[in-house]
Amino acid sequence: MRAVALGGGHGLHATLTALRRITTDVTAVVTVADDGGSSGRLRRELGLLPPGDLRQALAALSEAEDGGALWAEVFQHRFGGTGALTGHAVGNLLLAGLFEVLGDPVAGLDEAGRLLGLSGRVLPMSADPLDIEAEVTGLEPGGEVSRIRGQVAVASTPGQVRRITLHTAGRPGKPPMACPEAVEAVLGADAVFLGPGSWFTSVLPHLLVPELHDALVRTPATKIVILNLVPQPGETAGFSPERHLDVLFEHAPRLRVDAVIADRDSVPTPARLRRAAAALGGRAHLASVADPSVVGRHDPDALAGCVREALGLTESEREGQ
Amino acid sequence: MRAVALGGGHGLHATLTALRRITTDVTAVVTVADDGGSSGRLRRELGLLPPGDLRQALAALSEAEDGGALWAEVFQHRFGGTGALTGHAVGNLLLAGLFEVLGDPVAGLDEAGRLLGLSGRVLPMSADPLDIEAEVTGLEPGGEVSRIRGQVAVASTPGQVRRITLHTAGRPGKPPMACPEAVEAVLGADAVFLGPGSWFTSVLPHLLVPELHDALVRTPATKIVILNLVPQPGETAGFSPERHLDVLFEHAPRLRVDAVIADRDSVPTPARLRRAAAALGGRAHLASVADPSVVGRHDPDALAGCVREALGLTESEREGQ
Repeated sequence: MRAVALGGGHGLHATLTALRRITTDVTAVVTVADDGGSSGRLRRELGLLPPGDLRQALAALSEAEDGGALWAEVFQHRFGGTGALTGHAVGNLLLAGLFEVLGDPVAGLDEAGRLLGLSGRVLPMSADPLDIEAEVTGLEPGGEVSRIRGQVAVASTPGQVRRITLHTAGRPGKPPMACPEAVEAVLGADAVFLGPGSWFTSVLPHLLVPELHDALVRTPATKIVILNLVPQPGETAGFSPERHLDVLFEHAPRLRVDAVIADRDSVPTPARLRRAAAALGGRAHLASVADPSVVGRHDPDALAGCVREALGLTESEREGQ
Repeated sequence: MRAVALGGGHGLHATLTALRRITTDVTAVVTVADDGGSSGRLRRELGLLPPGDLRQALAALSEAEDGGALWAEVFQHRFGGTGALTGHAVGNLLLAGLFEVLGDPVAGLDEAGRLLGLSGRVLPMSADPLDIEAEVTGLEPGGEVSRIRGQVAVASTPGQVRRITLHTAGRPGKPPMACPEAVEAVLGADAVFLGPGSWFTSVLPHLLVPELHDALVRTPATKIVILNLVPQPGETAGFSPERHLDVLFEHAPRLRVDAVIADRDSVPTPARLRRAAAALGGRAHLASVADPSVVGRHDPDALAGCVREALGLTESEREGQ
């Protein structure tokens, strides 16, 4: 089964970790709008794709064999101290070096994937760094709309995010260009996964890259949305599960999905979620998919089980094994 | 043939590049007293071994097959710009990450060696960062001796370096501890090479690590000194080829060598050099070993030819081929 997961950050990590239990053919399509932390510093300093979310996806798909585990650990290692390197993940620096030497992020990611013994592939949603802009209410008195720029600012706004737009970094108004390999992967997939993750800053951006949006609408793949366990403080504070689906629809009215996976305990009114899923053309699958030991984290085995159910696969199927 | 080359920087790179033409079993033993540039910044910021000379040695021994060439290029790539990363070589950052994750520079270098498809091994002369101190004359009127600290300061002093000492960084008076694997490599070698390179800051430091000094005196290996093409501005300005050998003897009176290789055009009075080599127990081999296109660089093929002659090998011998 060819699975493609779109997202960024910890949410994408959860999906990839679960999908690895089902198939060896997993492609991650990753947001490139981050402007915070180690990624933001590298992006500003070198003008490259922010590598952090890409690195997380590589680590999630790294196989323990052939030294992959050591390299995954080195990739994820962050320098400490109080100097110029503090907080930089080694993998971010290595990806930056590969991008500069090869002049092509896709080739750089494929090379890093070989180093980490990847089962699957990690692709950026665009070969250009992108910028997020959000319309936010609740910051000004009288319901006025404020415009907030940058992933960190949007993700942490105390206001209510209404709508986001995406453009090529440093060129406001220029719509983002999709990475052709990512478009191809979506069109050729058997199953496509959206979420979980920071809804406005990691999940929705994929729908705002026109060619990727079209591919998601057109692909014959089974389309599955995986909802978050807890609302994000900031961008989706107070959002119900069904409100997440509404926001998806508002940003991509033509998109139809086949299944919506949600954690049973995170859905206060299952009937409402079922209706919202049906409005998108899909069926809601409620199961216990939370890791009981870590708040906000999916249990990979439970999530994999629910994905199998949504795809109509039997427990024992893992292709390529 | 098991060859061990001791040195640092560009000089060691030249020897390693030549030795690769003769044998696949090359071990580099590398100075770890650098305090300048990217290495110095990493050393000060993270308290690790300065990685630059180690990285150069890895690149020199990297094989082009199996992606080794790409990784060697990535290792040697330096970030540009004007930010916090400017001037850092990617390989230095990756070595720093490996050292921190593995907690052991030898294990980290072996891992980097696998990545680069190394034929041979790169070892630090000590697992601790070291500091160089020099007695220098000519800086004060009246022939007074000044003490200069740090590799960069010593290498660029306008005075005359008389003598250097080496101690564990941050612990003046504590003699440097040898890396046990380096001692073992010297004792088990068939041929050991010293130089070329910055004489006081890359070549002599090996003789100031007591266990390494002992191993160099005791090893049954053929011992070969390779002299520089041109005097270094700064530390050895105005030094004749034979003065280089005298300095070696002053720092290691018990050391005997079998051969001294020098470029024919860099030796104004061959008879003097022959006498100085004989005083160390060896024979001088004069040949045209300079790269005619780059001042101060050895031609690897010519140098390999002269090494073969000094070792009594025939042209066609390259072990492991």
